[in-house]
Amino acid sequence: MEKRISQKMEGLGTRRSVIREIFEYGNRRKAEIGAERVFDFSLGNPSVPAPPVVNETLAALLAEREPAALHGYTTAAGDMGVRRAIAAYLEKTHGAAADPALIYLTVGAAAALTITLSAVLPDGGEGEVLLLAPFFPEYRVFAEQAGGRVRVLPLREPDFSIDPAALRAALNEHTAAVIVNSPNNPVGSVLTEGNLREAADVLREAEAAYGHPIYLVADEPYRELVYGDAVVPFIPNLYQDTIVCYSFSKSLSLPGERIGYIFVSPEAAFAREVYAAVMGAGRALGFVCAPALFQYMIPACLGQTADLTVYRENRDLLYSSLTEMGYTCVKPDGAFYLFVKAPGGDAGAFCKLAQRHELLLVPSDDFGYPGYLRISYCVATDMIRRALPAFRAAMNDYEKEER
Amino acid sequence: MEKRISQKMEGLGTRRSVIREIFEYGNRRKAEIGAERVFDFSLGNPSVPAPPVVNETLAALLAEREPAALHGYTTAAGDMGVRRAIAAYLEKTHGAAADPALIYLTVGAAAALTITLSAVLPDGGEGEVLLLAPFFPEYRVFAEQAGGRVRVLPLREPDFSIDPAALRAALNEHTAAVIVNSPNNPVGSVLTEGNLREAADVLREAEAAYGHPIYLVADEPYRELVYGDAVVPFIPNLYQDTIVCYSFSKSLSLPGERIGYIFVSPEAAFAREVYAAVMGAGRALGFVCAPALFQYMIPACLGQTADLTVYRENRDLLYSSLTEMGYTCVKPDGAFYLFVKAPGGDAGAFCKLAQRHELLLVPSDDFGYPGYLRISYCVATDMIRRALPAFRAAMNDYEKEER
Repeated sequence: MEKRISQKMEGLGTRRSVIREIFEYGNRRKAEIGAERVFDFSLGNPSVPAPPVVNETLAALLAEREPAALHGYTTAAGDMGVRRAIAAYLEKTHGAAADPALIYLTVGAAAALTITLSAVLPDGGEGEVLLLAPFFPEYRVFAEQAGGRVRVLPLREPDFSIDPAALRAALNEHTAAVIVNSPNNPVGSVLTEGNLREAADVLREAEAAYGHPIYLVADEPYRELVYGDAVVPFIPNLYQDTIVCYSFSKSLSLPGERIGYIFVSPEAAFAREVYAAVMGAGRALGFVCAPALFQYMIPACLGQTADLTVYRENRDLLYSSLTEMGYTCVKPDGAFYLFVKAPGGDAGAFCKLAQRHELLLVPSDDFGYPGYLRISYCVATDMIRRALPAFRAAMNDYEKEER
Repeated sequence: MEKRISQKMEGLGTRRSVIREIFEYGNRRKAEIGAERVFDFSLGNPSVPAPPVVNETLAALLAEREPAALHGYTTAAGDMGVRRAIAAYLEKTHGAAADPALIYLTVGAAAALTITLSAVLPDGGEGEVLLLAPFFPEYRVFAEQAGGRVRVLPLREPDFSIDPAALRAALNEHTAAVIVNSPNNPVGSVLTEGNLREAADVLREAEAAYGHPIYLVADEPYRELVYGDAVVPFIPNLYQDTIVCYSFSKSLSLPGERIGYIFVSPEAAFAREVYAAVMGAGRALGFVCAPALFQYMIPACLGQTADLTVYRENRDLLYSSLTEMGYTCVKPDGAFYLFVKAPGGDAGAFCKLAQRHELLLVPSDDFGYPGYLRISYCVATDMIRRALPAFRAAMNDYEKEER
């Protein structure tokens, strides 16, 4: 018999992401030589436990609520009380107009993105999604699955900001959405208010020129993960046609539980229609409702975070040590990634060289921006300390082989 | 500015399902005249609480496991220990070959279906999904979203079995999948082993004739909800090319938590490739992994159910009372639905008439099978008792207006 299934899906399931490949190589390697001898910086899996309020709230819900009500269906968009709490929090924290009737709870940010892109991309496959490189590689998968074509605009070095002129040139009559991710994975950079205002002006010009909205999709799982003085502007306050895709995965350290939300700005063009399309996409993709127990957890946990001091300590240790060794790094203001120039410029080659020293780094090629290494520092600080000789040895190897 | 979003998704979000419409009408009506005066039989939301083992297991996990591990990402397919437990359970209970490497945990049966259909439908939009009517209306949405065309085959009255000759005639070279739902929503009927064997023979013939596999997608959220002597055969034992989509929503009374799995039969043609496509579809649709806490709950709860005696009592009370009043009903062997012939044959008209007596029933038209009323009896037995005069009054009205 002939095989007759989706080749596209089989391909997506067979060709694992590079990040996953390295992570699984690491797991095999740990089994071979011992976990403490492998320095795995591949995955963005929070190492800091959830703040106590999470488990306390979950335990109280289990103990106090009537089980049939607690575990029953909520409405498709999520429990109205929870959505009201989120809207009130956004109003209080960001001074933003927020309407619970325009908030839709999701199983994490990935679902928020697939639903939002399926909602705003016009039918027929002509719509474009603009990605700002470097970008989380799954954006490409999500945009194409939603029927969009992908266009890539590199961010501007050295601060990885948006170049307004380049943005103007990248927009066209087919642009339906621009995905913005700040704090950024993989760079750790944060877009400033000034830069976002410049970008918003360009987007508004393009909307006027092409006669239809261009939605800014703000993917914000790292919103609360910022260090020092960095401020993460609330984009709906700067650009009206914004849809925020938020996740509690990183801020509350519960990435496996899959809970987040879509926030359609009440000021967005056709906000009600966009929200209806979000409802339709959630339905068609099979989401039904976000996990009920984790919905009810949200009100008690809004604005709370896991203990972020470890990440700050890790950032400072890694940044200063690597810089001292001769690596060139972007100093991250947020998230938990360090973006390091690959010595010699070939990220894949340098990652292989680093593997000799049991050092697992991710080459940036799949992020649409070659020549860099992504280092996830959501790991134990002690592992970073133990890994420093390996970073030094990799650099030495590189220098030796260069000569 | 011109609106330029997905019309298809906006339509799906705006035109709510008939079931949801009636349910929300019921909520408004309850607010107006008091909840105890409205007899809402519209929604399949389990009324019986989850068995104690559910909350006990969840509480123990919260108390005992290290939070960063408990709430962290699992592999995309789900925790391997959990998948091993499911495979062992399926082997023990059904004597089926089961491979944890072919089990994929999902956020409920809806996700299992959208992922499975996206996996097995060939790219290009030529693939067909055969639905056996009456069927859960969202099947049509899921199949079309996955890029399939829908063909409908009515089941054979009076027992709502599969007519082998009609099945043969409905299959063609484009058929990629047949969805089977037993115990059935909305009928409550259970397909017998004999009938499934007849259907399997026809499917195998068609596979040989057309030269490619035809996957039977068994949607089994009601597997454990059977009454009396009814036996639900395990379809992979009867037909090799079976993919089971299972949910714990109904058996454990936790539909809001969204936890289920896909089981690809190890004997299915191209089982590994189908599973890879399942992985790819889960990735592309944005599922990442099923909620971790509810994954870890599964091993302790396999084979457990909520207390089903209430449903059995409800079935018996409703079936005998309605039959006595002159309604014609299919006696259900499973699930928690009663499928009643609409007096006069126009289900929509009779539902309107019933609403005069605050009786909320769902017309069967959207199930691809007009002329019936679906009554969800996962409600308090007391409400059924109080609703009986309304059923009688509706029948009286109908008879009066007929004359």
